[in-house]
Amino acid sequence: MAERLYLDWNASAPLRPEARAAMIAAMDVVGNASSIHAEGRAVRGLIERARAQVSQALGADGADLVFTSGATEAAALAHAGRGLHCAGIEHDAVAAWCDVDLPVDRDGVVQVADPALSSLQLANSETGIVQDLPQGLAVSDLTQAFGKLPFAFNWLGCDMGLVSAHKLGGPKGIGALALRQGLDVTATIRGGGQEMGRRAGTENVIGIAGFGAAAEAAARDLERGVWEAVAETRNLLEQALEAECPGIILVSNGKPRLPNTLSLIAPGWKGETQVMAMDLQGFAVSAGSACSSGKVTASRVLTAMGYSEAEAGSALRLSIGPGLGTENALRFAAAYGKAWKRAGQRMKQAGADLPRQTGN
Amino acid sequence: MAERLYLDWNASAPLRPEARAAMIAAMDVVGNASSIHAEGRAVRGLIERARAQVSQALGADGADLVFTSGATEAAALAHAGRGLHCAGIEHDAVAAWCDVDLPVDRDGVVQVADPALSSLQLANSETGIVQDLPQGLAVSDLTQAFGKLPFAFNWLGCDMGLVSAHKLGGPKGIGALALRQGLDVTATIRGGGQEMGRRAGTENVIGIAGFGAAAEAAARDLERGVWEAVAETRNLLEQALEAECPGIILVSNGKPRLPNTLSLIAPGWKGETQVMAMDLQGFAVSAGSACSSGKVTASRVLTAMGYSEAEAGSALRLSIGPGLGTENALRFAAAYGKAWKRAGQRMKQAGADLPRQTGN
Repeated sequence: MAERLYLDWNASAPLRPEARAAMIAAMDVVGNASSIHAEGRAVRGLIERARAQVSQALGADGADLVFTSGATEAAALAHAGRGLHCAGIEHDAVAAWCDVDLPVDRDGVVQVADPALSSLQLANSETGIVQDLPQGLAVSDLTQAFGKLPFAFNWLGCDMGLVSAHKLGGPKGIGALALRQGLDVTATIRGGGQEMGRRAGTENVIGIAGFGAAAEAAARDLERGVWEAVAETRNLLEQALEAECPGIILVSNGKPRLPNTLSLIAPGWKGETQVMAMDLQGFAVSAGSACSSGKVTASRVLTAMGYSEAEAGSALRLSIGPGLGTENALRFAAAYGKAWKRAGQRMKQAGADLPRQTGN
Repeated sequence: MAERLYLDWNASAPLRPEARAAMIAAMDVVGNASSIHAEGRAVRGLIERARAQVSQALGADGADLVFTSGATEAAALAHAGRGLHCAGIEHDAVAAWCDVDLPVDRDGVVQVADPALSSLQLANSETGIVQDLPQGLAVSDLTQAFGKLPFAFNWLGCDMGLVSAHKLGGPKGIGALALRQGLDVTATIRGGGQEMGRRAGTENVIGIAGFGAAAEAAARDLERGVWEAVAETRNLLEQALEAECPGIILVSNGKPRLPNTLSLIAPGWKGETQVMAMDLQGFAVSAGSACSSGKVTASRVLTAMGYSEAEAGSALRLSIGPGLGTENALRFAAAYGKAWKRAGQRMKQAGADLPRQTGN
């Protein structure tokens, strides 16, 4: 039987061996980082080493880095009570705190009227679209870009950035808020004074150690050009899908995108059905952001870009990682093409005028 | 050289082998629990298995269990915006959200006027004092009691309970809020809908798996009477310290306490100095709650019980675990007694009238 393929890296990337090793090593370090004895100081040392690793990888030397339980918590810290504006393509964790009223065009490009009062992601989790961030931006969700695109927080011109470990090969449940020096946030989790008073609670030292090691390894991979090779595989996959499935819509291809992300619309074939069909054949893919458990709704990102509800409900996201390779990419395209044709035949028999397949 | 002794289990307990194994196994499970493909469902399975393990150990079958990044976050969820009352012996993570006005007596016993508007811990982290919880209590911090005392959340008569993994041998950075069925809380971390809408963010599956395994192992140890043996060692340690150090005050000994906790006051010898002196001799101990990094202040718990600032500033907490044994307990008592005498001599030479040692 063919190897199962995991094509959902934007939902969560596999744990890097470096992160795994750092986490296992941290398991043997007993104690609470707030304790002043040798055990406590050893834990503190692990945390501060990881903070330096993440800062370095993020190009955030001199900025403050507050470890949180993930980018979602970092988003709450950065946005709560500030009345910031954002576009409909932002992640729920950002949109939940914002006035969602910034305009987005068909290619996913957001117009920011007042950067100091706005939150704008660097790259989108579903389409991969990369934004040109305006200077003086209040907050940027860097979650998907961190580790896949070369950038430095200190040169982005934004006040705060959100990052997550598990999107770059660290563990789930750990992230950080980067703050330009001199800025502050009001703690939403209080009592204890950890993280310079910005985030109370005994630190998740195993997770933090894993984040540090993963960020360091991710930066090294980026430097080595690993993601340029991924982009080549993604482009090849896109071409193969276009050839297999005449009539599908490739969202924003040719625009500046994450190297690993591919968004398509197969008109009339429901996204959730596509995911289940491909899952049965050994491929893990997604109909959009993973974070809306159980909700079978149209992609909010695509409707914000002007796609219809029907189109947005027929979307598929592929997000690949290094090492997929040409052969596996073509294997997926062939399997997807077959499933797409079967779906088309079923719908034709059912008398539906969808999917609007232009070929075969 | 003698083995270093870790006597600070209430700050953070060593990771249990069962938790370590469960976490390492969870590292190989790729995916996001919100994804509907096989990988996502496997992650979801790990989380729900751990939820059942923690519920079972906590005696909370049928109650809702919301995983959080620790008891501190659970405390924020349970208390924020409710105007509850608590006593000065509560942990900072609770007191930060409450009116701190409930009376406490010299033995650490709290009087609750209106249970429905109050938060009361089951056991104190510094003194180990166990409270008799009134029926209808709004919130109870169960962090220190969970795994060390036999109780069932469902029989406590409180609406919500806070628990933490690392106090019972799970990893740091994971905890939970238990809610009597039918109750709800307002999410403070939003966007994504995880944990039934009460706590957004991709789940910390490695931490959750470790929590589940640790809770199960802790319940089994409790059943086996492991902590009764610990109480015997603690009592022996207390007697040895009393014999070595005439004049020390043993806080609330003889009262209902956690089996592993011992709080003493060595009048005139600063708690932080004691911790550093013992650390150099190979013993990890604490001057109070670990969670007040860098703050060298008197124990707020002891002043709330009516001890003077000077007394509360001279406190030491010992919190031991299974397997310490008589020999090691006596080794600590002897080392502490020597240090105490040296400290007394130094202060006498310096002309201080403290410590008020009554012997030697």
